[in-house]
Amino acid sequence: MTHIPQSEQSMRSEQSMHGMHHSMQSCIQACMECHQVCLQTVMNLCLEMGGKHVEPEHLRLMMNCAEICQTSANFMLSSSTFHNRLCGVCAEVCDACGQDCKSIGDMDECVEACMNCAESCRQMAGSSMQH
Amino acid sequence: MTHIPQSEQSMRSEQSMHGMHHSMQSCIQACMECHQVCLQTVMNLCLEMGGKHVEPEHLRLMMNCAEICQTSANFMLSSSTFHNRLCGVCAEVCDACGQDCKSIGDMDECVEACMNCAESCRQMAGSSMQH
Amino acid sequence: MTHIPQSEQSMRSEQSMHGMHHSMQSCIQACMECHQVCLQTVMNLCLEMGGKHVEPEHLRLMMNCAEICQTSANFMLSSSTFHNRLCGVCAEVCDACGQDCKSIGDMDECVEACMNCAESCRQMAGSSMQH
Amino acid sequence: MTHIPQSEQSMRSEQSMHGMHHSMQSCIQACMECHQVCLQTVMNLCLEMGGKHVEPEHLRLMMNCAEICQTSANFMLSSSTFHNRLCGVCAEVCDACGQDCKSIGDMDECVEACMNCAESCRQMAGSSMQH
Repeated sequence: MTHIPQSEQSMRSEQSMHGMHHSMQSCIQACMECHQVCLQTVMNLCLEMGGKHVEPEHLRLMMNCAEICQTSANFMLSSSTFHNRLCGVCAEVCDACGQDCKSIGDMDECVEACMNCAESCRQMAGSSMQH
Repeated sequence: MTHIPQSEQSMRSEQSMHGMHHSMQSCIQACMECHQVCLQTVMNLCLEMGGKHVEPEHLRLMMNCAEICQTSANFMLSSSTFHNRLCGVCAEVCDACGQDCKSIGDMDECVEACMNCAESCRQMAGSSMQH
Repeated sequence: MTHIPQSEQSMRSEQSMHGMHHSMQSCIQACMECHQVCLQTVMNLCLEMGGKHVEPEHLRLMMNCAEICQTSANFMLSSSTFHNRLCGVCAEVCDACGQDCKSIGDMDECVEACMNCAESCRQMAGSSMQH
Repeated sequence: MTHIPQSEQSMRSEQSMHGMHHSMQSCIQACMECHQVCLQTVMNLCLEMGGKHVEPEHLRLMMNCAEICQTSANFMLSSSTFHNRLCGVCAEVCDACGQDCKSIGDMDECVEACMNCAESCRQMAGSSMQH
């Protein structure tokens, strides 16, 4: 077995399909998961439960969060040079949505998906800004 | 002034930007108008009024109608060979949404946009099927 | 351990989050996977390779396929009564895209994602039509 | 005829459907116009012409510009509190796309739509930040 230099190993483990970094693949998955959970929850659980679950600000945040996660994932999938800028805004929306879901209660799955996506997008926004 | 043969005049009046037929440009506009009116109405008027305006089936129809109008417009804008198939489904969703808005009341703008888009998409679906 | 009747076991295994059937969850995943693979491939591999990979009809099919998969997933996630109609069109687009990718070559991942999504959408369209 | 105070006249002329300010309605129209022009141009003119029109960076910019304009319009239509943040990013993408189209040439319609949208989004981003 041939020796592989540390730097090359590191590069290999950091890249995947189409030469995309693992950190970006991971952020794409976090965005797609958050899009799916928010859309499915707002259009089923929230609409069926009513009350504070259909208050204008909450329903808007859920819809907006689902949409910006979808667009952020699409920007990363298409290798847009602006993906970090969009991820920065996505992190803010996910933070706000996650906190709103937490204060309403009974929305643990949404809270987790939003917080996970916010953290991943914040890293993507920050790391890209240093380039 | 030079004489322009009837056939050439007809061709000119039937085509516009990028050689696109007027009937398609008109359907794109109807879809974009219906998307805009449905999304703006559901996320403002419906959410603020509450009651039957936020009943699950109504809110879903409004959101689904806005999205399929957007996608149908995008298929026509990109000259997809499947635009007629999508317009056929779009016409059904717009019909259902327009009728739902009519039965709820106080949604005249939505009713008109949905009915106009349904008619335009039905023509687009039918004319393309004959090709 | 308590005995669970066959019918109840069956119901449990057929349903998941928010009471959604496994067949629909599976179709949502197939659509999201196909959207992701098509968009990532067309915006990276196809654009970088050029030649027949950027021929108008191929590039349009890839973009259209990515978009209708996204919209079909969103219709299922939001429990739209029209999801089966949209899945029927999605199956056609995925079939066409998969066959186009196969004839161009070097696009095995796309071929597999398209064929898998086409099959899943066809079942969704058919099963819903019988209701 | 009753006298209408200056301030009330001003307020009326600044607001339209659903109490939305004219500046936002105008920005929504600029975004929808830019989305339409970019998508139609890239999927028809650029793909048919080939050469520098299908170079990866140009095609990506055109697709990304179309998508972020669509999402920005949707955020404004749904009265999202984050519309100004998204408009800020949209202005950057439109600027880059307009400049790229200008340097490539033969894309006057795109250049105008991008520059108009960039200016409108920049105002929307700035005015909202002062609130």
